[in-house]
Amino acid sequence: MKKLLLFILLLVAFAPSNYAAEKAPKNVKFVDAQSLNICGHTLPTEKSPFYRFDPEPYGFKEKNISRYACYPTGLYVMFRTNSSQVVATWENVPRRVGDNMTAITQLGLDLYIKHEGRWVFCQSGRVSTDTEKSKRTKTLVKNLAEGDKEFMLYLPLWCELKSLEIGIDENAVIEPIASPYKYKVLNYGTSITHGASASRPGMTWSARMSRNLGIDFINVGFSGQGKMQPEIIPLLSKVECDALLCYCFGNPSAKEIEERVDYFVDELVKTHPGKPIIFIRPLHNELDYFDMVQREKLVHKLSVINRKIAEIKKRHKDVYYLDEPFPHGDDFEGSVDKSHLNDLGFDRVIKTYQPKIAKILRKYGIK
Amino acid sequence: MKKLLLFILLLVAFAPSNYAAEKAPKNVKFVDAQSLNICGHTLPTEKSPFYRFDPEPYGFKEKNISRYACYPTGLYVMFRTNSSQVVATWENVPRRVGDNMTAITQLGLDLYIKHEGRWVFCQSGRVSTDTEKSKRTKTLVKNLAEGDKEFMLYLPLWCELKSLEIGIDENAVIEPIASPYKYKVLNYGTSITHGASASRPGMTWSARMSRNLGIDFINVGFSGQGKMQPEIIPLLSKVECDALLCYCFGNPSAKEIEERVDYFVDELVKTHPGKPIIFIRPLHNELDYFDMVQREKLVHKLSVINRKIAEIKKRHKDVYYLDEPFPHGDDFEGSVDKSHLNDLGFDRVIKTYQPKIAKILRKYGIK
Repeated sequence: MKKLLLFILLLVAFAPSNYAAEKAPKNVKFVDAQSLNICGHTLPTEKSPFYRFDPEPYGFKEKNISRYACYPTGLYVMFRTNSSQVVATWENVPRRVGDNMTAITQLGLDLYIKHEGRWVFCQSGRVSTDTEKSKRTKTLVKNLAEGDKEFMLYLPLWCELKSLEIGIDENAVIEPIASPYKYKVLNYGTSITHGASASRPGMTWSARMSRNLGIDFINVGFSGQGKMQPEIIPLLSKVECDALLCYCFGNPSAKEIEERVDYFVDELVKTHPGKPIIFIRPLHNELDYFDMVQREKLVHKLSVINRKIAEIKKRHKDVYYLDEPFPHGDDFEGSVDKSHLNDLGFDRVIKTYQPKIAKILRKYGIK
Repeated sequence: MKKLLLFILLLVAFAPSNYAAEKAPKNVKFVDAQSLNICGHTLPTEKSPFYRFDPEPYGFKEKNISRYACYPTGLYVMFRTNSSQVVATWENVPRRVGDNMTAITQLGLDLYIKHEGRWVFCQSGRVSTDTEKSKRTKTLVKNLAEGDKEFMLYLPLWCELKSLEIGIDENAVIEPIASPYKYKVLNYGTSITHGASASRPGMTWSARMSRNLGIDFINVGFSGQGKMQPEIIPLLSKVECDALLCYCFGNPSAKEIEERVDYFVDELVKTHPGKPIIFIRPLHNELDYFDMVQREKLVHKLSVINRKIAEIKKRHKDVYYLDEPFPHGDDFEGSVDKSHLNDLGFDRVIKTYQPKIAKILRKYGIK
């Protein structure tokens, strides 16, 4: 019996830790990501460098908004290194992944490298979907050519991040670099803005438009909660930005839009005077819906939006409305589940709306 | 103590079944999918209508090939109904989902509807990623307009399917309809062909090209195993098809390609005389790789492929090689993890290669 107990004790003592399956490679030294430049916050944070903003001061009734505030959605770490490899060790608060996105998007990392003057995809940080495993170590890239390289590491979109360390060659140097972006656009919205269903954290609409235009589109998307609730206005009012982009007609009902949009716009115009506020119509067409009840609801909602926006534009010259229908092509393939976009859908959205957004921003000197 | 035991017993007795979370709606009658038209098989099956083919006769050394044979990858169910709704109840062999694809792609369903002469996306069958839950019921679409409608339901790409029933209004009629495709192209290959990382089962390269061209591209992709192993040849030789498309230079090493490709092609030409056999180069470019070792390996592999294909084309007039580099655009965004394509990557592949594939097929009267 004693021997059995001893055996069990030894088993427990030497049981593989969460790290065991993905051991850190040898001859690598780690630095805390906090010693590098973490960008993309909605507001500066005190509770954690991996929060978008500290939710407490706002007392959100909707607890999902507070939860999503604590996700590192849209955050990215900027650094330069002469290492031959980039390793990452990170730990998230464990959660089971949702079904309409990859686990990489929800829990993983996404490394971009500066290549011939552009930020291009280098490699994603893949993850186990085992909910028991929340500590992860991955060699993101190795055998790099000699010399300094600049990196941008996107953080997970749909989990709370407890820690992140970057590993490099023992004899290499790593240092923070500045964000590549001068201007900031607050990108407020729904799950579409949050990132559903991009295949990697760097494939969100915000992240892609940022790289394309060289302007920081700050991800302030709240899945299912981009409803222009009055309680969100104090947050949006506080954000230092040069323009606002609002994709917030998908989540609320026609009635909620009718009730909320005037106050929402009036307040934002007050707190962000002279800045362009660009609204985008819901990314659904009548033809999306073979469900006739949903189709009718959408037609009604679009008529409410059109009427309200026409009224608002009369009193606010800096409010814009992009009402081009979502570009389905003739194949309707841009969605994963009718509500959320896949990478093809996001690509079509970008092709349609980005030039129009850029044109408005240029009028305000944002370029 | 007795009371506690009784309490636990009652708890267990009335514990919710797997179905509890997703109850079938009322006033719905179900029919077995086997009474409809299940299409897309590599070969007719005896063991299960949801296998691509029965693996036993081939005695594959690589057990993953046998495992993947039993997945309903690329299978689709054809039916017509006048129901106002389409419900699905399905059960898969439980498994934890992989990280670089959605659970919908791996375990879910994907419903297409015939709309103005085209097959267009109607709705996906979303799933729980809880490995305890493998029985699923989903209302895919409801409130349909009156009248007969034709549907195509794609089955999951990465799990074994135990059962599938389609639910319709109690007073409605459902009946099998023929496959919309006349010609068949055997699409042999790797995980890219298998479907990694399309966002839904209907978004694979095979499924999209089938709908686009009206030709059935049969999904014979084996993740990680599209290596032209000699043991796969008896299977490919038996398939009744009008042409062969082979994306099989990604998985094997340069050495394996050197050793295997002659025998692979010679045998297929023997068993499929006069049919076009179209090879596609690996969907990676030198520039993909910031890992210099990988880059060098790819350059070497491409030179081996070019040499071997040039030799083969001299002796086989019906062998084609599409060597256009993978169309990265200037943003490199088409991949989820450098190995697998996202929907944007597949879209670019289709834009580049589909016209060339269609042109070759037309020469053989396949259109």
